[in-house]
Amino acid sequence: MTEFLKVVKYDEAVAKIKQHFPVRRIERLSLLSASGRLLAQDIIGPEDLPSFDRSTVDGYAVRAEDSFGSSESLPAYLDYQGEVKMGEAAGIKIEKGQCCWVPTGGMMPPGTDAMVMVEYTERLGDDTILIYRPVGPGENLMLKGEDVKRGQSLFKPRKVLRPQDIGFLASLGINTIDVYQPYKIGIISTGDEIVPIDINPAVGQVRDVNTHALASAVYCCGSIPCTYPIVKDDFQALKAIVLKALEENDILLMSGGSSVGIMDVTIDVLLSIPGSELLFHGLAIKPGKPTLAVRVNEKMVIGLPGHPVSALMIFSIICSPLLKTDSSQRVTVKVTQNIASQPGRDDFVPVVLEEKDHQLLGRPLLGKSGLMSILSLADAFIHIPYEQQGILAGSSITAWLF
Amino acid sequence: MTEFLKVVKYDEAVAKIKQHFPVRRIERLSLLSASGRLLAQDIIGPEDLPSFDRSTVDGYAVRAEDSFGSSESLPAYLDYQGEVKMGEAAGIKIEKGQCCWVPTGGMMPPGTDAMVMVEYTERLGDDTILIYRPVGPGENLMLKGEDVKRGQSLFKPRKVLRPQDIGFLASLGINTIDVYQPYKIGIISTGDEIVPIDINPAVGQVRDVNTHALASAVYCCGSIPCTYPIVKDDFQALKAIVLKALEENDILLMSGGSSVGIMDVTIDVLLSIPGSELLFHGLAIKPGKPTLAVRVNEKMVIGLPGHPVSALMIFSIICSPLLKTDSSQRVTVKVTQNIASQPGRDDFVPVVLEEKDHQLLGRPLLGKSGLMSILSLADAFIHIPYEQQGILAGSSITAWLF
Repeated sequence: MTEFLKVVKYDEAVAKIKQHFPVRRIERLSLLSASGRLLAQDIIGPEDLPSFDRSTVDGYAVRAEDSFGSSESLPAYLDYQGEVKMGEAAGIKIEKGQCCWVPTGGMMPPGTDAMVMVEYTERLGDDTILIYRPVGPGENLMLKGEDVKRGQSLFKPRKVLRPQDIGFLASLGINTIDVYQPYKIGIISTGDEIVPIDINPAVGQVRDVNTHALASAVYCCGSIPCTYPIVKDDFQALKAIVLKALEENDILLMSGGSSVGIMDVTIDVLLSIPGSELLFHGLAIKPGKPTLAVRVNEKMVIGLPGHPVSALMIFSIICSPLLKTDSSQRVTVKVTQNIASQPGRDDFVPVVLEEKDHQLLGRPLLGKSGLMSILSLADAFIHIPYEQQGILAGSSITAWLF
Repeated sequence: MTEFLKVVKYDEAVAKIKQHFPVRRIERLSLLSASGRLLAQDIIGPEDLPSFDRSTVDGYAVRAEDSFGSSESLPAYLDYQGEVKMGEAAGIKIEKGQCCWVPTGGMMPPGTDAMVMVEYTERLGDDTILIYRPVGPGENLMLKGEDVKRGQSLFKPRKVLRPQDIGFLASLGINTIDVYQPYKIGIISTGDEIVPIDINPAVGQVRDVNTHALASAVYCCGSIPCTYPIVKDDFQALKAIVLKALEENDILLMSGGSSVGIMDVTIDVLLSIPGSELLFHGLAIKPGKPTLAVRVNEKMVIGLPGHPVSALMIFSIICSPLLKTDSSQRVTVKVTQNIASQPGRDDFVPVVLEEKDHQLLGRPLLGKSGLMSILSLADAFIHIPYEQQGILAGSSITAWLF
């Protein structure tokens, strides 16, 4: 029995998998299709933005010095030279003692360096504008290049493209971009006792929860799940489907039955493939001891525990961080009760989130870890590190949403 | 000019839109396709789970009373009756003084009511097992129906289906479910100065950022965006495209140019359609005053400000909460500096999130709100309510991730 020859710590396991994780391929997409995707190129400011000095208010464009000293009782008198229309170039050149109307977003005419808001002005006949308040140079306008300068480094590779980033790229006229392709991830459930979910399990059989939960988890990480039929505890059958799945995917998730035998067969199958290397077998984690990772050439196989609760937890703590592209997945919570933990392993405890007095609380779900319903109740889980002997009620700790 | 006849507060605006929000249609999907979707039915426990009493450890199934009083120095002697195999029905009936081997997850044989872990036992020859520790009835096993009881209400409609929920439904043998269809949302940019993003804007023109940013935002809310060509400030042209988009979508997002005229034309077009009703025009919100909502029969049209920063912020605070299905979008942050706010309007301030000493900090981006780069820098925004006159550095406040 190839049983847990050397159990590794959580950090080591993640580091080993990360080191050998498949390289993401790159594809070129239109900006409209790139939402939520991972940028695969540098973005350099292609031009100045705004491309001209523009007003940020409705009012009159002036030379600031012409407004100096003006007040309610002693306004400045400026010659009105017409208006700059929205969406049109400013054709009027403004000289000393002159002004012209510019709407919000409109282009500042040559010769002007400030905007006086319409609220602080009055029109006197056709030709004269009274200015009741001084403005400084640059006031109420946005200078050319103030938002983005040409040649400036804007985004680095591996940035997740959110709506505001898509909008920002659009404002720069960037229409297509290089992004990383999502991983294709094969999912294989193994075990003599596993039956498809639409079959009524005979006594002693269990439904194939893992294919469904893991496919959903893969999908929610932005990767593409590919499911395979359940495989029984048989070397040849397992090898055939593993080779096919490795051919079709970047990463393979296998979840073993609870029987010890299937884990051995899985390892035998994987290590019989030329170019394979066992990264680890056995994790000092609760739940999820019987986890393994094997590199097969440039692909990665992760063997998860057969029990669905453990399988999904291990996926969330080992695979999600490497697959997921958004960082908004951790929150700080106050733990509502003491949680015991054994030093010498990393504990992961599902919690329910509750908000009270503007504080986010994490109520641990300490029931039997075998209950399927536990995971479905959980909003997040907290991590009690290797060295730590539990945590006290009221402590703040990071919770991972899941 | 139909300008802000009655400016409404943020809460009122959301309530009005919510009241008339289109009804979601229902579709039936296979469980594997339902990740992240919104459940549209009740889920009732179809059967007991587990369907039999099962062991949660490797060891011997016993009658608990037979182990009472046993200890390291004085073990109980039980007759070994064979083993229950994983994935098989327990055929052995256990009488007083007997036991049998059951693996983790295996079925408890009739007559037994507890499991003794293998660590606390010793095998003596072929027929006798020594028990070194007493167990109570029910110890180390999961009772039939302990996870789910038949007829129990499990999920209610409008629950978002996460991987663990998909797994839970799979464990119940539920293979297809009713979920709500995603909304189809049309997006129309209007304004004489707006040009497609792949065209180099002439002076005074601006690129069509809103179509891109809003389509991405709609997509990230789990809805289906449908974009239309830019429309100029013309009643007939706008009406034609609005009618087409209303036909093809549940909801319509229109973003007006910065010119005042286009907003009037938009309202005229919408109110010229039989069955339309103006819900509000003008919001006491910074940014985003020129927002409007019109119900057109069972569809909803929301007019957003022309400025991209305002348009995306208003989408995030008005539309996202009604469209988004996951609740993991709010975190509590400590504000790093004082933020002034004018009572009598709701302020929304973009912030950068930073973690320090296990505390999540929100650093407000107080630059010029016109900068496109601001939104792309922001991780979240905070809401300063209507009545409040700013917030002090160090206060805890809810931030909405976006």
